[in-house]
Amino acid sequence: MKHVTCAKCVRCGAEYEAVPDLTTCKCGGILDIQYDYAYIRAHFTKADLAACQDYSMWRYRPLLPVEPDSPSTPLRVGWSPLYQADRLAAELGLKRLYLKDDGQNPTASLKDRASAMAVVKAREAGADTIACSSTGNAASSLAGNAAAAGLSAYIFVPSRAPKGKVAQLMVFGATVVSVEGSYEDTFELSKAAIDRWGWYNRNAAINPYLSEGKKTVTLELMEQLGWQVPDYVALSVGDGCTIAGAWKGFKDLYAAGFIHRLPRLLSVQAEGCCPLNRAIQTGEPWRPMEENTLADSIAVGVPRNADKALAAIRESQGIAVNVSDEEILEAMRLMGRTQGVFGEPAGVTGTAGVKKALELGLIDPDATVVSIVTGNGLKDVANGIRAAGEPMRVAPELPALLDAFARRGIEP
Amino acid sequence: MKHVTCAKCVRCGAEYEAVPDLTTCKCGGILDIQYDYAYIRAHFTKADLAACQDYSMWRYRPLLPVEPDSPSTPLRVGWSPLYQADRLAAELGLKRLYLKDDGQNPTASLKDRASAMAVVKAREAGADTIACSSTGNAASSLAGNAAAAGLSAYIFVPSRAPKGKVAQLMVFGATVVSVEGSYEDTFELSKAAIDRWGWYNRNAAINPYLSEGKKTVTLELMEQLGWQVPDYVALSVGDGCTIAGAWKGFKDLYAAGFIHRLPRLLSVQAEGCCPLNRAIQTGEPWRPMEENTLADSIAVGVPRNADKALAAIRESQGIAVNVSDEEILEAMRLMGRTQGVFGEPAGVTGTAGVKKALELGLIDPDATVVSIVTGNGLKDVANGIRAAGEPMRVAPELPALLDAFARRGIEP
Repeated sequence: MKHVTCAKCVRCGAEYEAVPDLTTCKCGGILDIQYDYAYIRAHFTKADLAACQDYSMWRYRPLLPVEPDSPSTPLRVGWSPLYQADRLAAELGLKRLYLKDDGQNPTASLKDRASAMAVVKAREAGADTIACSSTGNAASSLAGNAAAAGLSAYIFVPSRAPKGKVAQLMVFGATVVSVEGSYEDTFELSKAAIDRWGWYNRNAAINPYLSEGKKTVTLELMEQLGWQVPDYVALSVGDGCTIAGAWKGFKDLYAAGFIHRLPRLLSVQAEGCCPLNRAIQTGEPWRPMEENTLADSIAVGVPRNADKALAAIRESQGIAVNVSDEEILEAMRLMGRTQGVFGEPAGVTGTAGVKKALELGLIDPDATVVSIVTGNGLKDVANGIRAAGEPMRVAPELPALLDAFARRGIEP
Repeated sequence: MKHVTCAKCVRCGAEYEAVPDLTTCKCGGILDIQYDYAYIRAHFTKADLAACQDYSMWRYRPLLPVEPDSPSTPLRVGWSPLYQADRLAAELGLKRLYLKDDGQNPTASLKDRASAMAVVKAREAGADTIACSSTGNAASSLAGNAAAAGLSAYIFVPSRAPKGKVAQLMVFGATVVSVEGSYEDTFELSKAAIDRWGWYNRNAAINPYLSEGKKTVTLELMEQLGWQVPDYVALSVGDGCTIAGAWKGFKDLYAAGFIHRLPRLLSVQAEGCCPLNRAIQTGEPWRPMEENTLADSIAVGVPRNADKALAAIRESQGIAVNVSDEEILEAMRLMGRTQGVFGEPAGVTGTAGVKKALELGLIDPDATVVSIVTGNGLKDVANGIRAAGEPMRVAPELPALLDAFARRGIEP
């Protein structure tokens, strides 16, 4: 990897060779992959991309920490659609809004970008087995991408994990261990097992390559916008890996000469679980919080990538906004009704934050905003029902229908 | 539309002008859109496609019955991934198998292709409201595509419709009428309402443009295969519109000079509901059947597009294979485990049929087969659980994990 120089600890600055099976620094800090941008500038241009026929995250290989001869992963991850959401923007009183629908990835979430990267690095490390602990999208994306690549996956989930997500894991043929304990217990058992059997580690914030996969969401949206940098990029935030990855993408593009300014990040958390936003708002170190929100994918009271996430928000002169569960459900309805995009609760939280930030006067209505939809609403049908309610019931006769419409004020 | 000549009844041969709001023939027969292939040959080439940057179903406009100035639909429908499924082929004892994953469409099924077409034709007809009756993917795809285009949608569902699918409809802001009666009652009420209010009609097999949208799945897979025609194309079959549309795509490409032979269709139905395959197998006219299968999307005892579907299977010298519910669930596990593709029951039925046809010696193991995955497994999580089972439960200690692995013969 001529374009990668090393991996550097974000806490103590120690540098490590960028071997495929990196984990954290000896000091406990998270590592960050470092690039030789002069090399990249000399070998990677917008014209190269315009000529590239690979419409997946792997079109950005010259900016990704993978060996030139490493095969891409089989599932088509990335190049998710970017929709200009004019009707939604009008309803919010915003000049221009784009929705980047990452729920259109193979296992229906942005996490496929990280898992596809993990699969490539596992192969480079010579591993045939890969493991993680997670209750949600990270697990299902790992199981799917590993199956497609012919790798074995061991997934550790707390026994309270929703049945639907477990079903996805089981269909993908992963060995799923349901741990009778808390999430912390689950994480510790996965760690012990990974240490014992030497599986490749795809735990969030432990493996520094994951956020390099996630940054492709930024590379894509900038290419789709013709390299015109938006004023704000809105993201829901849980453990912090995704917003950190998105920011890394902007910094890479800037350093490589593809863009000439940077956007501000809009970090959106749930009111019931916002340890990172609280740190931004108070200027104090982050402290753990209860996990009191229906948006399960961002219900992270102890964020594992706080260092990178807080640095990203601060460097971008970002804005932190918290939204209530009701505001999340309202955003789900709004995005569905105006744009035909169905996101899971965490997937619509970024847009709920855009609405809230406009109401609070934190964002200029003349701004251009990109909101990233991180997961598909079909992942969590129960909350879809909670958001959207029940249909009217009528007897199978036209007079009954006329009556039902009249009672509801519906005038076809 | 210089390339469209008329719409012709498949039963009596009557011809109609191809106006946007066509329904069925006066004789009750289904209409089929007719093209001027000489015009198309003169104006549409493989080179045009190679230069086309629109990676959606609308890249095939010169073969679609839409006005040149009609805007495309906003959601990114089509250009779903085609995966070469080598591990799955090896397990089945087949030389070459491809999976076309149409569960990757915006509302997670192939039906988006028909609904996007319906939205374009509704706009051409000057309609601002579009309606259909359906319990499943047709309804949710219409609701999503209509919302994205700013059209109103009225959806009629029987009150037994699964909550999850209703939730999708409600999130997309459709007016959903839950009819206290059978599916037939629901259809009749939708018909009465469409007649009364003049809504644009998206009922399957009534509107002849829908299968023209569906045929884009064939146009795509042929382009993705470099115009190398496979020996067989496997599809699950319910009301018959999808297999008829897929076949229309092959005939169009043949007539337009893009391909020089035609594949054989593999029509796959559930043993518990196979009226069309029974007609093929016995040579007798089709007769209604009970709807006794867990694959709800193809549980169609009275297929509404029998004429076109039977003609397609026969013209292609096709093969009809029925599979049991257990074989459908086995195909779901097999596709998930070997290729990381999670299909709903009807979405994996085509592949279940490929397996069955090989076992019965109906397909040459040296053949090249494309199997179309018509819908995403997240649409029907309950059957995913039924297919894949429950994970092992362990206490949060390594000795407990070792014990659990040993008892199951798992050797990491």
